[in-house]
Amino acid sequence: MTAGKRAGTDGILFTDHYQLTMAQLYFRLGIHEQPAQFDHFFRSYPDYGRHQAGYCINAGLEWLVDWMDTARFRDEDIAYLGNLTGTTGRRVFADDFLDWLGTNGSFEAISLEAIPEGRVVHPNIPLTVVRGPLAMAQILETPLLNQLNYQTLIATKASRVNEAGRGRPVLEYGLRRAPDLGANAGSRAALIGGADFTSNVGVSRSLGIPAKGTHAHSLVQVFMARGEGELGAFRAYAELYPDDCLLLVDTIDTVESGVPNAIRVFEELRRNGHEPVGIRLDSGDLAYLSIQAAQRLNEAGFPDVSIVISSNLDELAIWQIISQIEEEAPRYGVDPARLIGRLTYGVGTRLITSQGDSALDGVYKLVAIRQSGMWVPVLKVSEARAKIPNPGKKETWRFYDQRRTATADVLGVEGENPLSDDQVLLHHPTEHTSHRTLNRTEISEVEPLAVEVLREGELVYELPELDAIRARRRADLDRLDPGVRRLINPHVYHVSLTQTLWDLKVDSVEKARSPRSSGD
Amino acid sequence: MTAGKRAGTDGILFTDHYQLTMAQLYFRLGIHEQPAQFDHFFRSYPDYGRHQAGYCINAGLEWLVDWMDTARFRDEDIAYLGNLTGTTGRRVFADDFLDWLGTNGSFEAISLEAIPEGRVVHPNIPLTVVRGPLAMAQILETPLLNQLNYQTLIATKASRVNEAGRGRPVLEYGLRRAPDLGANAGSRAALIGGADFTSNVGVSRSLGIPAKGTHAHSLVQVFMARGEGELGAFRAYAELYPDDCLLLVDTIDTVESGVPNAIRVFEELRRNGHEPVGIRLDSGDLAYLSIQAAQRLNEAGFPDVSIVISSNLDELAIWQIISQIEEEAPRYGVDPARLIGRLTYGVGTRLITSQGDSALDGVYKLVAIRQSGMWVPVLKVSEARAKIPNPGKKETWRFYDQRRTATADVLGVEGENPLSDDQVLLHHPTEHTSHRTLNRTEISEVEPLAVEVLREGELVYELPELDAIRARRRADLDRLDPGVRRLINPHVYHVSLTQTLWDLKVDSVEKARSPRSSGD
Repeated sequence: MTAGKRAGTDGILFTDHYQLTMAQLYFRLGIHEQPAQFDHFFRSYPDYGRHQAGYCINAGLEWLVDWMDTARFRDEDIAYLGNLTGTTGRRVFADDFLDWLGTNGSFEAISLEAIPEGRVVHPNIPLTVVRGPLAMAQILETPLLNQLNYQTLIATKASRVNEAGRGRPVLEYGLRRAPDLGANAGSRAALIGGADFTSNVGVSRSLGIPAKGTHAHSLVQVFMARGEGELGAFRAYAELYPDDCLLLVDTIDTVESGVPNAIRVFEELRRNGHEPVGIRLDSGDLAYLSIQAAQRLNEAGFPDVSIVISSNLDELAIWQIISQIEEEAPRYGVDPARLIGRLTYGVGTRLITSQGDSALDGVYKLVAIRQSGMWVPVLKVSEARAKIPNPGKKETWRFYDQRRTATADVLGVEGENPLSDDQVLLHHPTEHTSHRTLNRTEISEVEPLAVEVLREGELVYELPELDAIRARRRADLDRLDPGVRRLINPHVYHVSLTQTLWDLKVDSVEKARSPRSSGD
Repeated sequence: MTAGKRAGTDGILFTDHYQLTMAQLYFRLGIHEQPAQFDHFFRSYPDYGRHQAGYCINAGLEWLVDWMDTARFRDEDIAYLGNLTGTTGRRVFADDFLDWLGTNGSFEAISLEAIPEGRVVHPNIPLTVVRGPLAMAQILETPLLNQLNYQTLIATKASRVNEAGRGRPVLEYGLRRAPDLGANAGSRAALIGGADFTSNVGVSRSLGIPAKGTHAHSLVQVFMARGEGELGAFRAYAELYPDDCLLLVDTIDTVESGVPNAIRVFEELRRNGHEPVGIRLDSGDLAYLSIQAAQRLNEAGFPDVSIVISSNLDELAIWQIISQIEEEAPRYGVDPARLIGRLTYGVGTRLITSQGDSALDGVYKLVAIRQSGMWVPVLKVSEARAKIPNPGKKETWRFYDQRRTATADVLGVEGENPLSDDQVLLHHPTEHTSHRTLNRTEISEVEPLAVEVLREGELVYELPELDAIRARRRADLDRLDPGVRRLINPHVYHVSLTQTLWDLKVDSVEKARSPRSSGD
């Protein structure tokens, strides 16, 4: 648990106050242990302004499950809550409720199904389904959304950066401008979504991968202050790290000083039996400078050393740099494909903060409650039809077409066979008049998306390693239409309801809007 | 320390890998304990796109100092680093360096000056000045920037939201869409910058303020599923919290159902000797609905209960809502000033993520190193003139004019008297030809901005309580020109260098660009 000034801020009280006041109300009514189901899903892809995501990469599950395993109301939490008072000085939480929380205030009775990490996911499809006693399932809302929203947001951005970079390595560098300790979850999500490595040492350790980095401008400055200049800095670095020598060449002047000095040191390294790793460019016109650097490195006999570029990169900046290299490089006698094939992208701020759209709109909605042995669908009838959640217990499938490409994610009622008819009618989740009919023969595969993760608090799912999560991502992306993967103006992927679920939704909305529901 | 999957991610390894490889190089050269000075400052105000900040609110110092007090290289960290290998399988970190880190790898020798939290701050003025042994001061870069950048970013956004809301209460609600554990720092920063309360229970506890909240739509849904409807939910809530009764009225239909049901329950409460607190609107046209709700509440004899509005609020949304109320309310017989005076703003996602500009561009630059008993200024001569840091040991003052309004933040050389002449020449920090001359008589006050916080690791500053930090913020805002506080297209506040510092900078740049510096 975090110590000092932050003590207790990452435990069970990492939640919204109203979750606790509502839990007490459920306790008072005797329904706090009544089984309830909440669905977690997002409503729209991130929209970065000039560009928009056409898919998301699911992430965050493992750390959530880990947090749920240890978070519980401890004596100090109960004592704190017992001292809280309302407007008139009366205690907010009564002893009987606090006693119950002290004994039952953990996630040991929660069951959880989820779409695995690394998978491509879409709006309105439940990513996580929580079933359990109403009070604790309610309290879970805030920490669950907090952890899953952010990691999915960052994994999605990382996937876009990776796609823009045409598979060349992406290094996640964002720690210094990341949101405080959220940086750790962000680095992990970036590694799931498309970053190959991170500079974040602690997260690299926790995931069992090497941390990566070069050196800072300050190293060169120190040597300049000592009168040994940039060349002195490069030599000292090469001597200490002869087989991992990656030099930052833009402290003084990239073309006039940095690259020539790096080449000199690389030649010395080679004479001593070592091969240099590369150079890093961190300012200026990165396309132009990488061409100039490549030209000089090629001429000097280093056609294969890496060129790491960084400074305000995101998917559009990388796309622009690649385009410019393709256009300009030939003029300088540099083969563009060869140059692009030696690039590595250092991506910081814009990845770790998802610059342009800094939050995913994931929600956690009560959809069913168990009464007298039966699951009763419940829903919110708000003004905006698009915001009405799909009621009840559901299943989700991904339909693949004859090209083995994903063609729709389909939400149906539990136990339903989505291919029971020759003609499959798929409803738009909110628009009454919009639907699509598929022939059963057009569908090559129907894949259930969710797995069982927690059964009454017990982990019944083998949490995959980072490599397996990344392989899952690549496999899903391979089966996604290129139009959906497009960086700008992507095709809208189909998310649909079965006829059975559509009918249930229409019926529930009508019932909820009837006068009886709004009064006594 | 964070447990489970995240173990070790919030300790000393919460840093970039290259800080450690550079530290080893300094160790190898024997300069790892040479005193060095790093300045932390940001280069530009957040720019949210359609609107821009004209000032920032400084935040994050207390939690940074707290983290520095406990973060150190522990045995498990040293063991981990000792096992890391480079490209060829050779160990990255040698035993002698790791031994030194094990013994000296804390921030006990670091001295730190800073501008206090809550103060209005501007670009290019050092917010934090770190002096100490080169190696540990270098390692501090990443966690310092991580913690200070994010809190200052969010405190700044909170101040804007607060200004837009004309001083009416702001509740910070962003936890569920905040960046993982960064949410805690974000809530704290929001409370410093302009939020009155947060829904985040853990942070409220750590700061000694009450957490706030109402109830969720799910509460009403539960009662609907039980056949007791919205009115049943409101009654149950009012019964349990008779003196803290704040009802969410938009689950079914705000005007047709929610407000009439709330009024019925408020009347029942009053008959039982309690006064209701208010209602919350969380969807739809918040200006229109708040007018409709106010009209009905007024007619029913509740002209003073709060109307809490929430849903995608930020400073511009609040500004728009207030403008619309001023225009529309009279048509419905509602006094706009009275209505605005009973509003409370629930602000979530857009505050905690600083939507529009999700990172502050704070940097940490080596500016001086002590050699042979003398501080030698050092600097980075990059292509962009604006990025050249101001060299050496400096002091910062805020100049106030005869209206007692802040007119410039001035950076000078340590020990300099900025008012030594009758005419004070202030240089633009980067533009050669741009300067401003003030008569000494125009200046009513010269205020040093930095305080000493750590003297070789020892806390020599009394960290102020939240209330004092907020009072500091309000005092600074009161003395800031309204043009600088403007939400859109703010005046550019003057940040200037004294003649002495300007001359030193020009001289240092010339020296660094001389051939001797770039080679041997």
